Amino acid sequence: MSTKTVPGNYFEDFSIGQEIRHATPRTVTEGDIALYTGLYGSRFAATSAATFAEAMGFERMPVDSLLAFHLVFGKSVPDISLNAVANLGYAGGRFGAPLHVGDTVTTTSTVIGLKENSNGRTGVVYVNSVGVNQRGEMVVDYVRWVMVNKQDAASPAPETVIPDLPGAVAAEDLLVPFDLTGRDYDVELAGSPFLWGDYEVGERIDHVDGMTIEESDHMLATRLYQNTAKVHFNQHAQSQAKIGRRLIYGGHIISLARALSFNGLANGQLIAAINAGAHANPTFAGDTIYAWSEVLERIELPGRTDVGALRLRTVATKDTPCSDFPYKGEDGKYLPEVVLDLDYTVLIPR
Amino acid sequence: MSTKTVPGNYFEDFSIGQEIRHATPRTVTEGDIALYTGLYGSRFAATSAATFAEAMGFERMPVDSLLAFHLVFGKSVPDISLNAVANLGYAGGRFGAPLHVGDTVTTTSTVIGLKENSNGRTGVVYVNSVGVNQRGEMVVDYVRWVMVNKQDAASPAPETVIPDLPGAVAAEDLLVPFDLTGRDYDVELAGSPFLWGDYEVGERIDHVDGMTIEESDHMLATRLYQNTAKVHFNQHAQSQAKIGRRLIYGGHIISLARALSFNGLANGQLIAAINAGAHANPTFAGDTIYAWSEVLERIELPGRTDVGALRLRTVATKDTPCSDFPYKGEDGKYLPEVVLDLDYTVLIPR
Amino acid sequence: MSTKTVPGNYFEDFSIGQEIRHATPRTVTEGDIALYTGLYGSRFAATSAATFAEAMGFERMPVDSLLAFHLVFGKSVPDISLNAVANLGYAGGRFGAPLHVGDTVTTTSTVIGLKENSNGRTGVVYVNSVGVNQRGEMVVDYVRWVMVNKQDAASPAPETVIPDLPGAVAAEDLLVPFDLTGRDYDVELAGSPFLWGDYEVGERIDHVDGMTIEESDHMLATRLYQNTAKVHFNQHAQSQAKIGRRLIYGGHIISLARALSFNGLANGQLIAAINAGAHANPTFAGDTIYAWSEVLERIELPGRTDVGALRLRTVATKDTPCSDFPYKGEDGKYLPEVVLDLDYTVLIPR
Repeated sequence: MSTKTVPGNYFEDFSIGQEIRHATPRTVTEGDIALYTGLYGSRFAATSAATFAEAMGFERMPVDSLLAFHLVFGKSVPDISLNAVANLGYAGGRFGAPLHVGDTVTTTSTVIGLKENSNGRTGVVYVNSVGVNQRGEMVVDYVRWVMVNKQDAASPAPETVIPDLPGAVAAEDLLVPFDLTGRDYDVELAGSPFLWGDYEVGERIDHVDGMTIEESDHMLATRLYQNTAKVHFNQHAQSQAKIGRRLIYGGHIISLARALSFNGLANGQLIAAINAGAHANPTFAGDTIYAWSEVLERIELPGRTDVGALRLRTVATKDTPCSDFPYKGEDGKYLPEVVLDLDYTVLIPR
Repeated sequence: MSTKTVPGNYFEDFSIGQEIRHATPRTVTEGDIALYTGLYGSRFAATSAATFAEAMGFERMPVDSLLAFHLVFGKSVPDISLNAVANLGYAGGRFGAPLHVGDTVTTTSTVIGLKENSNGRTGVVYVNSVGVNQRGEMVVDYVRWVMVNKQDAASPAPETVIPDLPGAVAAEDLLVPFDLTGRDYDVELAGSPFLWGDYEVGERIDHVDGMTIEESDHMLATRLYQNTAKVHFNQHAQSQAKIGRRLIYGGHIISLARALSFNGLANGQLIAAINAGAHANPTFAGDTIYAWSEVLERIELPGRTDVGALRLRTVATKDTPCSDFPYKGEDGKYLPEVVLDLDYTVLIPR
Repeated sequence: MSTKTVPGNYFEDFSIGQEIRHATPRTVTEGDIALYTGLYGSRFAATSAATFAEAMGFERMPVDSLLAFHLVFGKSVPDISLNAVANLGYAGGRFGAPLHVGDTVTTTSTVIGLKENSNGRTGVVYVNSVGVNQRGEMVVDYVRWVMVNKQDAASPAPETVIPDLPGAVAAEDLLVPFDLTGRDYDVELAGSPFLWGDYEVGERIDHVDGMTIEESDHMLATRLYQNTAKVHFNQHAQSQAKIGRRLIYGGHIISLARALSFNGLANGQLIAAINAGAHANPTFAGDTIYAWSEVLERIELPGRTDVGALRLRTVATKDTPCSDFPYKGEDGKYLPEVVLDLDYTVLIPR
């Protein structure tokens, strides 16, 4: 029997400081833009129209930050999370050079934390994944941690290292790839009159609309990102597992929630940071995703009067409209209908 | 609670002469061409092959007229028909500058008619929507009318204004963006030997083939056009409505019927006008669409001997082959299996 | 009633030596690349990243050989297999000039064999289909044979001509559109350390992963290829046929099996030949496809020390993992779970 097949790494295969250069660099095409629009219906003007992006002082129209995130994330799956039990969280995600059509992304991950679970059969792996373009410029840099199976429960536990997780990305680390100084920003074409100064900390916005997910939709998306996690694609195997169904890639929910958030946050043109995130409950085909957001912080950007940032919490639910902002129960746990809790930062004109 | 969410306009929000510049300009990419082909399987040579288009004297390969139509239509939905009860009809649709990869479309609509319904709870709004490219050239210009809910039944009825609806677009208003003079038109590669002179007024063509629609297909298409009408996407909400299911965007049926019409009208390379149209009955996932066409008029184009036009009626049905041309019953009403009645004009070499 | 509709050819419409120039040339776009990735999740680096392809000495990043194959195949369907009962086999498939974004493919087929079946109602048609780009360079050249209905059982049988089917494409006929001489080939980015010399004849590889197919997936793919065979698309008609369901285009299974084969054959960057192939059993939406491969031959390429070829048999199954390499029963017939038996040749660095 051949041993040429890649089995993915198990918990005992990881060590602190280990650096993994992931396979399959990926060139972004105009097709990715169209598929991303078709999959989520995103309407942010800066990533929809070259003319609008150029009028904002972008060099060229960038692709959606989240498409960049998914491509970088996808590369890391075969090495990091093929044998994962759960994707536990994200932290410290910064977006650097915007990705354009024709750019090629490559991802490298470094193991920065390890903790075996008390059951001795699984452990948590913390990695810092960095996606770069063909010029070596950072495109996305983030930390995620996943629970991974051990192959052999008898293998010894590594020394526990829990990294200092970065908090919210600081104002001075937010990169702004456009400049509105001396330019007219067209709020009508952008879809909303509300700019940076119009949002209040603590303000909550129900994004109203809902989007139902089909199996084809999430599989098309997840394959596009060359994410190979088995649980998303193989109904034959999932039928035999406890859960019985294909699980939807958590990033698909992030993109849907972001697209829904246009209704209320249309000028939040670009995501500059993903501060923290959790997939509170799993989603399946047939679920209808709704979302609401809370303004966590209104951030002034050093030296910039043309643009500011909003730190937001966007919460997505399944089969539950968000007019009363469902979140956590009295026990402090996520309500069962809550599927995403994302703390991130968007750039928005002043 | 935030008021930053766009609720869409209600009947009493519209006034005669009101001009609405719609949000989210949209740049056409090569990805749109591929998705359009993948969604409908269209085979018209002029929009499938750059070589063929150039051999016809097009400057560059244009994208399908209907893709242009859907993009322009999609922009208008959040402002015009988010609270629509029904999309009642189209008239006077002219196609201008062909849309190419790299072009950016923006849409503006003007309210040209208003009529409150006798129930006092809804009214009909007539708008003239015009899509332009980044050079300000008209891409599509058409009238549609929709039935829209009132937010407050007590608000007073506006003065009734019913616009003179344009009839079929006149020969002199049809724009021909190619020139076959002195060129060989390759009927073999085009897929049919039948040219302008081979069609007779009154001739009816059964397009034979059928195409079944899945939920993923119509939602992918409708999101691609950034059309946000809730009824297409939200199964959770639709389940609670009388109809119980997601409604398919009528334009999806137009594109399917046009793609099916290749079998019988392969040389009708480009749609130059949509004279009138009605969505006779709703369609749902699982329906199989068939189509037939009737030649309404054979039009000579002023000063052109290389190309003519055919005014066609294409009728689409669900789950009903079209060998006996199903249309209207003895009562003059559409048969229940008829889903589209489209009066439009195609350009076809002589 | 109109006779403008193309009915497709029946068995008695074919004659030896007949040459058919198929309709609808097709320009390849960046959208095709993205959709191909989204449909199959293919991860071969040479067709995923422009930088990687250029580092291998490709002039430009080629599109996947199988996308070229499907486009060429699709063109031939309306003339060859619209009335086909079954697609019986492939032979002698050679890939020539790689297809790039912007290239336009046209297909011509020549009838090279005919044999009426003893039932007098069907016959087998052998065609040699050749796809060329806009410069007339051969892109794909292959033989396929299909069982086609007769329109009139009373029409006389043609003289039986069974062509000499080409065997496996010879080493000297394999075209290598890249040159690794003097270049570093990055096995890490490619996803596997195993190169030409690491594979043994007779070695078998279980590709482990499984992919479930939805109706939307195979229809989106098959329409993208402008393949019009009715059995793939029309549930209304299929419901009335014995099989009751839409059949999946066999080429969709080839592409899925090839994408799955990345896990074990990641350096087999390009398919250079399809030597023979059979669709052993039909597939339907809901099936989960698995695959395994056997190395049939390790081929040295004349004058090349940078690259070799592997002749492979890849077998795909439905709803059956491949750890014990399911293939044929004791009776020599394919097991019912086997859906594809493909004999092909890939190029792989030494």
